[in-house]
Amino acid sequence: MRVDIVTIFPEFFDSPLGCSILGRAQQAGIVQVEHHDLRDYTDDAHRTVDDSPYGGGAGMVMKPEPFFRACADILGGEEAPVVLLTPQGEPFSQQKAAQLAAQERLVLLCGHYEGVDERVREALVTDEISIGDYVLSGGELAALVVIDAVVRLLPGAVGNDQSPVQESFGDGLLEHPHYTRPAEFEGRAVPGVLVEGNHERIRRWRRKESLRRTLQRRPELVGRVELSSEDHELLKEIWQEMSAGM
Amino acid sequence: MRVDIVTIFPEFFDSPLGCSILGRAQQAGIVQVEHHDLRDYTDDAHRTVDDSPYGGGAGMVMKPEPFFRACADILGGEEAPVVLLTPQGEPFSQQKAAQLAAQERLVLLCGHYEGVDERVREALVTDEISIGDYVLSGGELAALVVIDAVVRLLPGAVGNDQSPVQESFGDGLLEHPHYTRPAEFEGRAVPGVLVEGNHERIRRWRRKESLRRTLQRRPELVGRVELSSEDHELLKEIWQEMSAGM
Repeated sequence: MRVDIVTIFPEFFDSPLGCSILGRAQQAGIVQVEHHDLRDYTDDAHRTVDDSPYGGGAGMVMKPEPFFRACADILGGEEAPVVLLTPQGEPFSQQKAAQLAAQERLVLLCGHYEGVDERVREALVTDEISIGDYVLSGGELAALVVIDAVVRLLPGAVGNDQSPVQESFGDGLLEHPHYTRPAEFEGRAVPGVLVEGNHERIRRWRRKESLRRTLQRRPELVGRVELSSEDHELLKEIWQEMSAGM
Repeated sequence: MRVDIVTIFPEFFDSPLGCSILGRAQQAGIVQVEHHDLRDYTDDAHRTVDDSPYGGGAGMVMKPEPFFRACADILGGEEAPVVLLTPQGEPFSQQKAAQLAAQERLVLLCGHYEGVDERVREALVTDEISIGDYVLSGGELAALVVIDAVVRLLPGAVGNDQSPVQESFGDGLLEHPHYTRPAEFEGRAVPGVLVEGNHERIRRWRRKESLRRTLQRRPELVGRVELSSEDHELLKEIWQEMSAGM
């Protein structure tokens, strides 16, 4: 996969792209990430990327021309999703990550200031993505979040010692608790079932704790999951334990 | 404010913390961000931070001791929120950012691998935060998102040329479209009302387009906002236009 980022802060990406799974995936040739300075696509001496808003008000608006020039140059007529990172976008999800991971190329446009001229959105952008309901200083961090979530779904990006399938949101529920050595730490012991080693009991405990945690923290997620008859049994047990104040 | 990050990838943070609002806020003394290598708090020659999970299965679990040692060292008995970045956490929001921005100190713990030993969560962590329903390769990006959203709320962090109040989620709605010069670009003209300069009409148009966009893209947000009688009028107009296929 090839990812092109259009940004006014190209240097922002240096260290995160060099680290961890993103760094390794690039070294392994699984993904190629290029960043482009939006100011290289301006045509004035001051390399101006923003201007006052029509209709007045505080803040500046990012001009349309540099984005159009950048995309024309980067894509050279090729078709690819052009993603604008913006709080007005579709909420990013694991499903959206999987959809983008199936593409050969992606172009990510990082917004800044008050916003981006609406004509960029109308005529250039194919997807608008918001990584969450909070305000960031720019689209750069959101672009990194999208790249990270997408790249780790590419074949070979995550090593064998890891397990993308069992992770949170892989099956729509939050994860069960995890424990490693020591068996007792600061007066807190690892649950007996995990130490005893009965695989069937462990599997059932983990599923139950995964359901319990999701029910307690994100009940809306339980409703979106296809529950097995065992899940219904476990949920009944959880309800009974909660009613009994356990 | 002082922010301490505990991570196995301290180098991840170099360039993002040097850029844009985060870089300027540090130079201006508004925030001090320190990162700490979790491996400095291990006690074996291999600087081991993870181990196999009790109960078996794929993936590794991050050991409890290094996190406890790191927090004891960083806080030295002081009280401060200790935030674990995890997909199992409370969904991050602008409200949560404002709550954290009122603190004098924050400690952010970046999880990795399959997860973090449950006893870290039980005995050390005060807040668990998830930045969204997608899987990232680690907590580092999530920590950066939290820092960025929090720091820009600190007095003086965002310059006068910007306007945190008018932004998306400031008032619970998505933003209206923005336009800047040229008045016509690629055959697309700026809406007449913005060019004509009648401030009252512009204000009303912006509010209406903000409501329209939120209704079309994130209808659940409209229900959470306190609507004025003008808003109800505008929503009625929007419904009529939508029914008329405008």
